[in-house]
Amino acid sequence: MQVPSPSAREAASMYGTAVAVFLVLLVAVLQGLAPPESPLPYRIPLDPKGDLELSWDVSYTQKTIYFQLLVQELKAGVLFGMSDRGELENADLVVLWTDGDNAYFGDAWSDQRGQIHLDSQQDYQLLRAQRTPKGLCLLFKRPFGTCDPKDYFIEDGTVHLVYGVLEEPFGSLEAINTSGLQKGLQRVQLLKPKISIPALPEDRRTMDIQAHNVLIPSKTTYWCHLTKLPQDFPRHHIVMYEPIITKGNEALVHHIEIFQCTNQFQNITSFSGSCDSKEKPQELKVCRHVLAAWALGARAFYYPEEAGLAFGGSNSSRFLLLEIHYHNPTNIRGRYDNSGIRLHYTAKLRHFNAGIMELGLVYTPVMAIPPKESAFVLTGYCTAKCTQAALPPLGIRIFASQLHTHLTGTKVVTMLVRDGQEIEIVNRDDHYSPNFQEIRMLKKTVYVYPGDVLITSCTYNTEDKNEATVGGLGTQEEMCVNYIHYYPQTQLELCKSHIDPCFLQKYFHLVNRSNLGEYCTCPQASGTTCPQASGTTCPRASVPEQFASVPWNSFSRVVLKALYDFIPVTVHCNKSSAVRFPGKWDLQPLPEIISKLKEPTPRCPTSQDQSSSSLTVVNIGGGKV
Amino acid sequence: MQVPSPSAREAASMYGTAVAVFLVLLVAVLQGLAPPESPLPYRIPLDPKGDLELSWDVSYTQKTIYFQLLVQELKAGVLFGMSDRGELENADLVVLWTDGDNAYFGDAWSDQRGQIHLDSQQDYQLLRAQRTPKGLCLLFKRPFGTCDPKDYFIEDGTVHLVYGVLEEPFGSLEAINTSGLQKGLQRVQLLKPKISIPALPEDRRTMDIQAHNVLIPSKTTYWCHLTKLPQDFPRHHIVMYEPIITKGNEALVHHIEIFQCTNQFQNITSFSGSCDSKEKPQELKVCRHVLAAWALGARAFYYPEEAGLAFGGSNSSRFLLLEIHYHNPTNIRGRYDNSGIRLHYTAKLRHFNAGIMELGLVYTPVMAIPPKESAFVLTGYCTAKCTQAALPPLGIRIFASQLHTHLTGTKVVTMLVRDGQEIEIVNRDDHYSPNFQEIRMLKKTVYVYPGDVLITSCTYNTEDKNEATVGGLGTQEEMCVNYIHYYPQTQLELCKSHIDPCFLQKYFHLVNRSNLGEYCTCPQASGTTCPQASGTTCPRASVPEQFASVPWNSFSRVVLKALYDFIPVTVHCNKSSAVRFPGKWDLQPLPEIISKLKEPTPRCPTSQDQSSSSLTVVNIGGGKV
Repeated sequence: MQVPSPSAREAASMYGTAVAVFLVLLVAVLQGLAPPESPLPYRIPLDPKGDLELSWDVSYTQKTIYFQLLVQELKAGVLFGMSDRGELENADLVVLWTDGDNAYFGDAWSDQRGQIHLDSQQDYQLLRAQRTPKGLCLLFKRPFGTCDPKDYFIEDGTVHLVYGVLEEPFGSLEAINTSGLQKGLQRVQLLKPKISIPALPEDRRTMDIQAHNVLIPSKTTYWCHLTKLPQDFPRHHIVMYEPIITKGNEALVHHIEIFQCTNQFQNITSFSGSCDSKEKPQELKVCRHVLAAWALGARAFYYPEEAGLAFGGSNSSRFLLLEIHYHNPTNIRGRYDNSGIRLHYTAKLRHFNAGIMELGLVYTPVMAIPPKESAFVLTGYCTAKCTQAALPPLGIRIFASQLHTHLTGTKVVTMLVRDGQEIEIVNRDDHYSPNFQEIRMLKKTVYVYPGDVLITSCTYNTEDKNEATVGGLGTQEEMCVNYIHYYPQTQLELCKSHIDPCFLQKYFHLVNRSNLGEYCTCPQASGTTCPQASGTTCPRASVPEQFASVPWNSFSRVVLKALYDFIPVTVHCNKSSAVRFPGKWDLQPLPEIISKLKEPTPRCPTSQDQSSSSLTVVNIGGGKV
Repeated sequence: MQVPSPSAREAASMYGTAVAVFLVLLVAVLQGLAPPESPLPYRIPLDPKGDLELSWDVSYTQKTIYFQLLVQELKAGVLFGMSDRGELENADLVVLWTDGDNAYFGDAWSDQRGQIHLDSQQDYQLLRAQRTPKGLCLLFKRPFGTCDPKDYFIEDGTVHLVYGVLEEPFGSLEAINTSGLQKGLQRVQLLKPKISIPALPEDRRTMDIQAHNVLIPSKTTYWCHLTKLPQDFPRHHIVMYEPIITKGNEALVHHIEIFQCTNQFQNITSFSGSCDSKEKPQELKVCRHVLAAWALGARAFYYPEEAGLAFGGSNSSRFLLLEIHYHNPTNIRGRYDNSGIRLHYTAKLRHFNAGIMELGLVYTPVMAIPPKESAFVLTGYCTAKCTQAALPPLGIRIFASQLHTHLTGTKVVTMLVRDGQEIEIVNRDDHYSPNFQEIRMLKKTVYVYPGDVLITSCTYNTEDKNEATVGGLGTQEEMCVNYIHYYPQTQLELCKSHIDPCFLQKYFHLVNRSNLGEYCTCPQASGTTCPQASGTTCPRASVPEQFASVPWNSFSRVVLKALYDFIPVTVHCNKSSAVRFPGKWDLQPLPEIISKLKEPTPRCPTSQDQSSSSLTVVNIGGGKV
């Protein structure tokens, strides 16, 4: 931390006082705006030190969010807002700033170069400004959608919150530029579902899966900690889990997951260290089954009253892997951590076992994204034939979902389709980030019946890539997965697809000009054998090699898109990753969509609503109070 | 012709009188609108009987057309206007109608069901209404573009004029529907070029190539008449030609062409009859070189002062084929015709020979249009390499152009590209009709230099087809040609292209699912041999057969489009249809376009201009005069 010189410190303090005084005066004028009951239920630190703390609540009836921003050490002001991917440029902002005399609060936006402009329409509405022992506390609200084209539309899924600290006064709002500011971002699901909390069983016990005195590394780290269930721990149902965050480390613990290992190893060498460490035992690779997951801003995860997640018992591994993502961009040192997750479980098994099913794309290089694409879509299908074969007659109920891609994913959506009609969105995140993967409770349970189709589409940005990004397990490869949490548990563990690899060979043949004289119909990756021209001997290039040799031009891009949108798929309708349900699963036609779901149009506040905004009081523009 | 009963005739006459009286009164009020000098220079009959006659003139400075509509037997009114393809529905109309008491003149439009609506903006402006011995004569004007979204934008190329006759009064404009009306269409180039007429040589002689007492068939017919030049007729230059239309047949003679035959036959059996007749001599097939062409609405065609079209002499055939298209939809009988074309020629050869060059697509099935496409584009390239090889250092000057497709063509455009930049449009018709092919003088001579590129694109509508339409010579096959008229004549007779047939084979392989196990790289059409997988034996299907077996779906359509937009081409850079300029002409990359020509935006009249419109006088809406 850089310590400001005494005079700067003094000046900043003076401005801070000016801001506070001005705002207190101002709030006296605000009438008839009942703030929600405090404290607001959701809370996150915005910056790594925790100097800026945001609390919020959601009113679905008013379609409005109430924000409370606590600024612990106010200097000359603060920017707070939202942007598409977390930049402070092209952002929708509230700005609290001073010109040295007065302080102002306004709804603004930043352009591509970081210059701040006042919104023509003021949609952030200040409700209260208060000095508290902890710092300046601002209460304000904003509708989800404002109809101001410069405003961010707050929707389900991830929201990239951004902030910037103003260290000195500015003569005008337009004089502020985001470059050079101390700034940062925090990802959060703002629109938390309002679901009633199920009653917990009386016999409930807890088990804390947590790190032990980890010295938080001075850079961003995934920490792996192997733990195990007690000897002969019988089968239980997890009914709830919640985070345990070591006090003071709230801004450093980014997300936590608990993975159950498969029981292929009787014993696994104990380990606690960086997940990237060379000393990490190889056996830990089998610990991939998500048991619990928490991320910043999430609260306790409750299973529905009639279901629980089985753990323990003789058929499952005793070993659990705790993975903690420490996010430490400012290299804070000397912090010890014991964070983890507290599992609440019951011995009285609930009526249903909850299950986790994997939807989306098979991990195969035949699904690939060309380089330099800003929004390339890949789609995986869980077909009617598979749900017909695998789901119980009364269907299943999806109550939560965790979306997953690797580094280039920007959007994920799963759509439920019945009789060719899009019925509802299972889960959708138009601002998905691979750095923020949480298990999200659905706002509404989704019922899926035999014969239904689940279509999962992922959008990727490969603008900074020079080669194709192929599907696969590696970090530099891509995935498109939605882990749905549902009950009653079925044998169907994964329902995914990839395009027919033989058609992909024809694609390579068409677009690879150097191939003019060659022809090969022998894809390597998937073990499938395509019919082959008799007598042809082929150079046996792998699919990633073939993708690497595609000349990426408008033709090869358009045709690959068309291929993925049209070509028959191979469906993995599997009991486990290796065992398929009986049936023919290759060359399956893509599900036909007869009718699309309408995109909800944001309801704009009427002009009457807008005129009730009291922003005129907030003397924006430089007049003295 | 149906004769109206006495009472109806009487009523119609009464309304006619009412219309005239009202309009005469009305015109007295119109001030300061100087009509152009009469008679207007361009004239066509609108209906087969010639009861409606349109004259017009173009003011390029005012960007306005002056129309004069002569209605010989006015009943209760008339609709006149323009539409995209000649329908009276979705048309931009002026309506003259009576409700029995008063008569009205208004700018209107017809919707998809033929219902008439008043335009919110009145852009047709009445200048004069006059009873003359020939009938009611209406003079009105309209800007090319009006900025009324319901109005037709008058641009270069073909305009489909439409008309409808109102036989009885209507209570209101909205009560009029186009269904049931006597109606029709006439295609015309409204925006005639204003070019100064070159002086004709003093030794000029004329030769009339005309039909001899042809009894016009009672249905639409192409009439073929073989004629020949005098024995030992030496080489001359045609400097001008003009139509000779038999008086009274103006509405029946649709267009006329004179073709020169090749001199491969010493003699050709004389013939005069329907071009479809089985008795037509086979030798007439060699008469394909256009010497002169006229179509309805066109006037005399003048060669530039320094050039003439050579004909006669020992190296060319003596035989000329006159083809007259009689358009007789109402089966008028008993008319004899001697129409034709009068050639004006000189023995004093001008400085330059004029030439005709063929641009566009090679006649080959590898260029095809899928069925059910509303606007599929095929493009032919005359590449820089070819113009470099074939054009003289000082280049050529294009002064006229004739666009040509077969039945599904709807648009044709040729663009001149230099150093990757679109320079200018050579010729363009966004309302092209295969039923209206004229040689059009260009408004401005286009200079083409070695290294320039000429790109000709044709748009096709195959919505009524069930199979692909392949390129070729047959009527049911398609072409994309621009015959450019230029000087000085060069050896380059055709500069056209088609996509590489080997890539097309890869396309078939990709999209023909039934082909899954087969692979064939042996296209038949062009004589090219593609590299072939060793040892493969292929079923030798022809390209049209292969197109016929393509399953037309979004995939095969998108990929074919992408293929045509991207794949290297084979260029025909030919001295005659068989002899190529030396060089490698296959697998040529498509010309790159770095900068596009800006679409001209129609300049809208300012609101002041609109307010000077005197339409308020035209008591529309039913008030009494």
